[in-house]
Amino acid sequence: MDSLDDLILGAGAAVYCLHASSENAAMRHMSRFVTHDPVTILKRVQKPPLMIVPQMEAERAAKESPVQILTRQQAGYLEIFKSDKNPWKIQAEMIFRQCEGPYLVPPDFPVALARALEPYNTVIVDAAAKLSTHRAIKTPEEIAWITRAQRAAEAAMDTAISLIRDAEIRSGILWHDDAPLTSDRARYEMNKVLLAHDCTAQDTIVACGPETAMPHCTGSGELMAHEPIVIDVFPCDNKTGYYADMTRTVSRGQPSGKVMELHQTVKDAVLLSEGMVCAGKTGAECFQAVRDFFAELGYQSDTEGFIHSLGHGVGLEIHEQPSLSGMGGELTAGNVITLEPGLYYRDIGGVRIENLGVVENHGFSRITNYSMEMVL
Amino acid sequence: MDSLDDLILGAGAAVYCLHASSENAAMRHMSRFVTHDPVTILKRVQKPPLMIVPQMEAERAAKESPVQILTRQQAGYLEIFKSDKNPWKIQAEMIFRQCEGPYLVPPDFPVALARALEPYNTVIVDAAAKLSTHRAIKTPEEIAWITRAQRAAEAAMDTAISLIRDAEIRSGILWHDDAPLTSDRARYEMNKVLLAHDCTAQDTIVACGPETAMPHCTGSGELMAHEPIVIDVFPCDNKTGYYADMTRTVSRGQPSGKVMELHQTVKDAVLLSEGMVCAGKTGAECFQAVRDFFAELGYQSDTEGFIHSLGHGVGLEIHEQPSLSGMGGELTAGNVITLEPGLYYRDIGGVRIENLGVVENHGFSRITNYSMEMVL
Repeated sequence: MDSLDDLILGAGAAVYCLHASSENAAMRHMSRFVTHDPVTILKRVQKPPLMIVPQMEAERAAKESPVQILTRQQAGYLEIFKSDKNPWKIQAEMIFRQCEGPYLVPPDFPVALARALEPYNTVIVDAAAKLSTHRAIKTPEEIAWITRAQRAAEAAMDTAISLIRDAEIRSGILWHDDAPLTSDRARYEMNKVLLAHDCTAQDTIVACGPETAMPHCTGSGELMAHEPIVIDVFPCDNKTGYYADMTRTVSRGQPSGKVMELHQTVKDAVLLSEGMVCAGKTGAECFQAVRDFFAELGYQSDTEGFIHSLGHGVGLEIHEQPSLSGMGGELTAGNVITLEPGLYYRDIGGVRIENLGVVENHGFSRITNYSMEMVL
Repeated sequence: MDSLDDLILGAGAAVYCLHASSENAAMRHMSRFVTHDPVTILKRVQKPPLMIVPQMEAERAAKESPVQILTRQQAGYLEIFKSDKNPWKIQAEMIFRQCEGPYLVPPDFPVALARALEPYNTVIVDAAAKLSTHRAIKTPEEIAWITRAQRAAEAAMDTAISLIRDAEIRSGILWHDDAPLTSDRARYEMNKVLLAHDCTAQDTIVACGPETAMPHCTGSGELMAHEPIVIDVFPCDNKTGYYADMTRTVSRGQPSGKVMELHQTVKDAVLLSEGMVCAGKTGAECFQAVRDFFAELGYQSDTEGFIHSLGHGVGLEIHEQPSLSGMGGELTAGNVITLEPGLYYRDIGGVRIENLGVVENHGFSRITNYSMEMVL
């Protein structure tokens, strides 16, 4: 893997520019600084990254981030402001004063700032997202952070599954503490566990019955016996910003034969893909192998069936490089990915199982440590 | 206020394009759809918004969003993919097939997609962010959502303040349940309360003593008596995505005379600004009035003192239009804003008080309902 400097030089640029808040993974990856307002980061060749921050953030940034810090005032803000009130032009002039370009920017760089920079020098878009491929190779420290979030996910999963297992069944509905067990209740109990692990999860899925046919339906209402319940949780560690991701599909009591078949097939697909993944294989190959496996058993990949990709990278973004879709490129050792085949039918329901792990030179090292069984 | 169509036509465009996940406020505002992967939204003149989604999201999107839905397949994805593998070019061609442009895009539109659209027709950047000014005027329903999040913030604030008030003081440190009361413990208890309100807060500030001199330091370690404790919480309602925002500065036992003076001055600045805000005033005027008020009392606005803006809009973003900084434009009835003067000194500490409310034709209608007193 090339160094960042090699990627910048290879693109014909002198500097890599970011302009984003820490919700942007590239920004947080480079600065390790958390802020809700956009700041500018400049990575010049053979120099450490430089971050331009408002005065109010200067002291905290110097303390919390390893990058070099410049306040906007030091970068000339007040002086430039006298002759130009357009915030994007001010930003561009501040960048130009630090580096004359050419400028390399990520594909999601704000178009307004790119246009304000163009009069100064060429703005090269990293359209192939080579720099996010760079970020997709995790250090041992990053793998430890993701693993910590994954253990929190498993503790939350355990809480939901215990609630479902321990529930009474009354007229086909699950009951707990003399009340119907709802999707919201299960989600709430999961979120409490995540909080105790200093993690936050949004849009946790606890979907039951017909809802499971929609892969990202978060679920609502009472949970039912003998129906598939899809539980998908992707917590973010509050301290590090790194995500984990896992899904299980369970049923309280035996579901229909068709659902059981879906579950067995999806579980086999997980094992198939886990056996196949290694550095050098492409995401597209792995995806296609699972599609083929499903197709041989009569499960298509059209408007129903296997209607999403096989998986995705996980890190500071819940969905990042590499992709295990039809467009997925070569996997590299150190990638952290999910493998999450699923099958969805409006008249049967949906089943998805998702494991997380590290791509190794000779295989896939699963991080997830949790039973894949369906019937509780 | 012009309608969205007027803004599009006024810019010389035929369509307003978004390409973002629902973490992007403009996208969520227009679609009311939650997704972690970017989708494309096209608002053509005199037509309802159209959202292009992956197959796996089609059914959920049709159910959860009021906009018109097209799957990527229906938009020609597979056909275009045969002749072009570049994801941005595919995206641009799908957009062109729906609308030939010219295209109006927000300032933070991905530069890669803007460049892929340029060969088809002019791409006009809404550099003045007129469309986000549009979103800054809240409907009564949105104000109700923000108010609900604010009540959750107040319940969480109450929990933190009760912990501090009820703590024992041992050698200057606050103790609770036979353990030192830490910033992390207070934050955890606040987050539990927020969860019970179905809200999530990240980066809640519970900073004490010297930490309070850095406005956005989240705080760590033991809380001390006779020192300022800044508590700043900005929860997001999980169901609606709307934020609230509040800050209080408290002290267990009397702090130094200098801190008491800072607090009184900041409280006076809050009341001054609340009395001044109304539709027609500019954010810059209100900001300057508070700067002047501080300056008259000898508090400067340089590297110490009042080192941030007076406030900001709150909605689907924690910081959005309008701005109450030196660049803040005219306030409009229906804006929901914070007023949060603060004073920060490395050798004294920091004090900030933040209220939330609605800009009205003849004043400011405070949403926050919480004591501003300092000494507990």
